[in-house]
Amino acid sequence: MRARMAKKIQARAAQLGLFDASPRAVAPAKSLRPKPAAKPKAAAKEKPDAVGRREDATSMAARQRDISISEFFTKNRHLLGFDNPQKALLTAIKEAVDNSLDACEEAGILPELIVEIQELGEDRYRIAVEDNGPGIVQQQIPKIFGKLLYGSKFHRLKQQRGQQGIGISAAGMYGMLTTGKPVRAISKIGPRKPAHLFEIAIDTQKNAPVVHKDTEIDWDKDHGTRVEIELEATYKKGRRSVDDYIEQTALANPHVTLRYLAPKEDVRVFERVAHELPVASREIKPHPYGVELGILLRMAKDTASRTLRGMLSEDFSRVSHQVADQICREAGQRPEADPRRLSTAQVEALFRAVPKVKIMAPPTACLSPIGQELLEKGLQTRVPCDFATAVTRPPAVYRGNPFQVEIGLAYGGELPAEELMELYRFANRVPLQYQQAACAITKAAMTIDWRSYGLQQSKGALPTGPAVLSVHIASVWVPFTSESKEAVASYPEIVKEIRLGLMEAGRRLGVFVRHRRRVADEEKKRSYIEKYIPHIGDALQQILGLSNARRNKTVEDLKIILERTRKL
Amino acid sequence: MRARMAKKIQARAAQLGLFDASPRAVAPAKSLRPKPAAKPKAAAKEKPDAVGRREDATSMAARQRDISISEFFTKNRHLLGFDNPQKALLTAIKEAVDNSLDACEEAGILPELIVEIQELGEDRYRIAVEDNGPGIVQQQIPKIFGKLLYGSKFHRLKQQRGQQGIGISAAGMYGMLTTGKPVRAISKIGPRKPAHLFEIAIDTQKNAPVVHKDTEIDWDKDHGTRVEIELEATYKKGRRSVDDYIEQTALANPHVTLRYLAPKEDVRVFERVAHELPVASREIKPHPYGVELGILLRMAKDTASRTLRGMLSEDFSRVSHQVADQICREAGQRPEADPRRLSTAQVEALFRAVPKVKIMAPPTACLSPIGQELLEKGLQTRVPCDFATAVTRPPAVYRGNPFQVEIGLAYGGELPAEELMELYRFANRVPLQYQQAACAITKAAMTIDWRSYGLQQSKGALPTGPAVLSVHIASVWVPFTSESKEAVASYPEIVKEIRLGLMEAGRRLGVFVRHRRRVADEEKKRSYIEKYIPHIGDALQQILGLSNARRNKTVEDLKIILERTRKL
Repeated sequence: MRARMAKKIQARAAQLGLFDASPRAVAPAKSLRPKPAAKPKAAAKEKPDAVGRREDATSMAARQRDISISEFFTKNRHLLGFDNPQKALLTAIKEAVDNSLDACEEAGILPELIVEIQELGEDRYRIAVEDNGPGIVQQQIPKIFGKLLYGSKFHRLKQQRGQQGIGISAAGMYGMLTTGKPVRAISKIGPRKPAHLFEIAIDTQKNAPVVHKDTEIDWDKDHGTRVEIELEATYKKGRRSVDDYIEQTALANPHVTLRYLAPKEDVRVFERVAHELPVASREIKPHPYGVELGILLRMAKDTASRTLRGMLSEDFSRVSHQVADQICREAGQRPEADPRRLSTAQVEALFRAVPKVKIMAPPTACLSPIGQELLEKGLQTRVPCDFATAVTRPPAVYRGNPFQVEIGLAYGGELPAEELMELYRFANRVPLQYQQAACAITKAAMTIDWRSYGLQQSKGALPTGPAVLSVHIASVWVPFTSESKEAVASYPEIVKEIRLGLMEAGRRLGVFVRHRRRVADEEKKRSYIEKYIPHIGDALQQILGLSNARRNKTVEDLKIILERTRKL
Repeated sequence: MRARMAKKIQARAAQLGLFDASPRAVAPAKSLRPKPAAKPKAAAKEKPDAVGRREDATSMAARQRDISISEFFTKNRHLLGFDNPQKALLTAIKEAVDNSLDACEEAGILPELIVEIQELGEDRYRIAVEDNGPGIVQQQIPKIFGKLLYGSKFHRLKQQRGQQGIGISAAGMYGMLTTGKPVRAISKIGPRKPAHLFEIAIDTQKNAPVVHKDTEIDWDKDHGTRVEIELEATYKKGRRSVDDYIEQTALANPHVTLRYLAPKEDVRVFERVAHELPVASREIKPHPYGVELGILLRMAKDTASRTLRGMLSEDFSRVSHQVADQICREAGQRPEADPRRLSTAQVEALFRAVPKVKIMAPPTACLSPIGQELLEKGLQTRVPCDFATAVTRPPAVYRGNPFQVEIGLAYGGELPAEELMELYRFANRVPLQYQQAACAITKAAMTIDWRSYGLQQSKGALPTGPAVLSVHIASVWVPFTSESKEAVASYPEIVKEIRLGLMEAGRRLGVFVRHRRRVADEEKKRSYIEKYIPHIGDALQQILGLSNARRNKTVEDLKIILERTRKL
C-alpha cells in the first residue's frame, strides 16, 4: 500500500515532468548579453568531447584528489565572513584585534592597540592593527599569518576570543585574493631583540606560507606586533560598521587603550580607564559529562596513565579517585585495568557509566562571566529604563565543554513601546553583529512565551514592548554556526540554559509589570475616592444639616473606611 | 573632541564596572551539583601553576601547532549538520544519497537506490545506502570514506549535488565519534570484478583513513556501492524528517527507483517513472566576469599557454581571440606577451579591463534549470491555487561562477489567506530543509515590497496571504552558509537575481490580483444595474403610461447605455 502511494507520487511528478527538465526541453533562457548565433559554436568549441561521454569507476578515480583547506576556504570565503566588501573590512579588523587582545592578556600586558584604516582607492583599503603584546617569535610568524588551521588556541579549554587558528591568516588570504598583496607583519619580542618585518602570502594549494620578504628593522617599541593587510573593502558608517565595533570593543574592554584612525577622520583615542587586567581565565581539562564515545576511545589510547583510575582522574576535571572508582564500578571495569588495552565495548561501558555518576560541575575558573550585579547595574545606567534585572546561570556542560549563560533584561522608561524588543548578543565578551536570525540566542528568545510576562508577542517572533535583552554566553569553546563566528549554534544544552535564564528574567519582569499594573489600578481607585468623597460630604451636610467641622470629620472617617476596604 | 567622547564612553563603562568583572569580584555562581567546600582544593589540584603564570612569546610559540581538518570538524561538527541526533540521521542519509545519485548520473546509469534505517537501541541506529552506480575502485575507497576534503567534485565547474569532498567522510566521522564503529563500505565496479568490503575509521589527528578490514566478498550485483554507518541518532516523523526528505527526493528525481526501509515500517518503494536520465550538466571553464585578482594571478602563473591571448581564450569560457585582444587592448598589454612573466601590476590591469569588455554570458550547459513552463505547470497541479506563474532568470555570474535563479509563485484557491506565504527552497534540485532564516532566498524575499503586488506584509517579514513561493538556484558552485549546505549565502549578485525574479513574478501576481479586484468591482456595479433598472422601468411605465413592450424596450436600452458608461 505504501508502495502504491509512493508510485502515485512519482507518477504525478512524471506526468508534470516536474524537476525532470533537460536544458534542451526548456525554452532557451535569454542570455545576459545575447549573441545567439555564436552560441552553439562556442559551446562546441569548449567541450568537444563532453556530450555523451560516460564515466566509469576508473575514469572517475583519476580525478579524485586532495582539497587543501586554503583552497576550500578561498572558494567558500563567505564562511569566514568575507562575503561582501563591507563585512570583509570588519572581519579582517576583528580577527586582528581578537588576536592582539588575547596575546596581551595572556602575557599579562595591559593592551594598547592602534587600529588604522587607510583608503587607497575605490573599494581598496589598507588596514593595520598594532599592539604592545608579547610579540611572536621569528620562526612562527610565517605560519601564523600564512597557514590556515594553525595556532595555539584550538587544543586548549579556556575562554578566549580566538579559537580556531583560521581568522588572521584567512584575512590575509582574502587580501591576497582581492589585491594580490601579501600580508605585512612586524613583530618584536623584547627591548633588546630586533624587530622582524615579514611579507607573507599563502600558497593556497599547499596551505603553506610563502615568505616574500624577511628583514630586521628598527622599531621604537619594546615589544609588540603590527599586521597590515591590503584588501578590497568598503568603509561605511552606521549599524554594523567598524566604528560601531570599535566603540563596543572599547566599552567591553575598559582595560584597553585604543587609538582608532578611520578614513578622513581624526584619530579617536579610547583611553584605558581600568588599570588592571581582568582576572585571566584558566585552562582546564575536559569534563566527563558530554564527552563523546569517540573522544573517550582516543583518550584511552593516548593516556599517559597506567590505570583506568589514573586516566579518569588525571585526564578529566572534577574526577577524584573516588569518582573514578565509582565510574569503574558502574561500568563493571577494574580501576586498575590498563586503559590502553580496553576494548571498544569496555570503553563504551565506561561511557555509559559516566552520566550515572554524580560529578561536580566543571570548574568555573576557565570562564569569565560578567556577573549578575554588574550586568544589572550596567543595564540600569546604559538603558533609559524603569526596571532592570540580570541572571547569571550556573555553569553547565555541552559536549564536555563548560559554558555559562548570562541574561540582562531592561524594561520601560523611554524604551520604544511599539517596537520589537532589542537583542544584544555576546560570546566570550565579543559582540555578535551579523546573523541574528540564525543564532541560538535569538531562537531561544523566540520560543519563550513573553505574553505571560506582560509583553505582546506574535507567533515565532521576538516580543514587542519597551524592552532590551542582552545575552552573554561564555565558554571554553563557543560553537559558532560558521567559521566567521557570527551566531551561536543551537546545541540543546545551550538553548536550554538560555531558556532557563530568560524565563527567570521573564518571571521577574512579570512581577514588576503586574505590580505596576496593580499600583496603577489602585491609583485609579484611590483617585475615585478622593474625587467623590468631598461631594458626598457636601451632600451629607445638606441632608443631615451637619456643621462644617462635623462634615470634615465624616469625610475623613469615610476615607479611612473606604481605603481599608479597598486594601482588602 | 572625538577623543573626549571616546574617553567619556570608557569612563562610563568603568564607572559601571561594565564588562570588567573578574570572577572573584562576582558573587559565586551556584554550581550544578554544589559542594563548595571541595572547590578550591579541586581547582588547585588541577592547575597548580596556572595562576599568575605569565606567558611570553617563547612560551606561547611552544604551543603553536597544526590543527587537522578532521579535528577541526570533530569539534565543530554542527558546521556539518551534526548538531543534534535527529538532524544527524538526516544529514548522514542525505550525504550518502547525494553521492549515489551524482555517481549514477555521471556514469549514465538509471539510479536504483536502497535506503535503510535500522534501530539498534535507544538513540542508536544503523543507516545503509546502496546504489547500482559505477562503484569505486579499490584504492580510492579508504580515502573517499576516511578523509575529509578529498574528492573529484571540488575542482570542477559543473552542477552537482555534492561539491566539497566532506559529506560522506564527515558522516562516517560522526558515526565513529558517537558509537566508536567504523564505516562499512562495499563496492564493485563490474560484473567480472570482485566486490570489496572495507571497514574504515578516520585518524582525526592526521585526517587519514585507518582500514580495519579489507576483504573480497560475493555480492550479487553487477556494480554499485553500499555504505553503512552506525551512529547516535533519533528517528522522528513529521516536518524535516527523513521520510519527508525521501519523498521529496523521489519527487524531484523521477528517474530514480528508491526503496526505503524505515524503523518498524514496511519497505516503501518509489518506482522510477521516467526512464531516461536528465540531460547531464557539463563541466565548464571559469567565466572572466567575477574572477578574483588572486585567482587570475595564479592562472597566469599556471597556464599552459605561451601568450596572453592564448591564456585568456583557452583557460576561460566565452573568450574568443577577438575578446582576448580587446581585454589586452583595454589593459594596455600585448596579446603576445608571456602570461607567466607578467608582473602583479600587469595582471591587475587585465583584471580591471575585464568588466569593461562585453563578454557573452556563461554557457548554460553547465546548469540544469527546471524551466519556466514545467515550474508553472508543476505549481498549478501541486498547489490548489487560482494563479501560478514561473520565472527562469537568464544565467548570471557571481565570482566567476555561472548560476541561474528560478521562481515559482502560486496564489489563491484553497491556500490559507491568514498565514505567512510558504517558501520552498532548492539548490541544484536538492530541497533545503534547515536554516530558512539564514538563507539568501528568504532574505531576498523579505526585502520585496509585496504590498505593491497585492499581498499584506509586516516590516522585515515574509508576506501574509494565500501564496506559495518556490525558489531554485542552480549553479556550478552553490555558496552555502555552512558546510552542512542548508542555506545559501547572501552574495550580492545572487540576492539581486533572486530579487529580480521575485519582482517579475510579483508584477504578474499584481496584475492578476488587480484584475480580479476590478472584475469583482464590475460585478458589483453590474449587479446594481440589474437590480435597480427593472424598478426604474416600472416607475417610467406608471409615469409615462408605457405599454409593457415599450417598458421592456426602454429597460433594455437603459441597460445598454448604462453598461457602456460603466465600461468607460
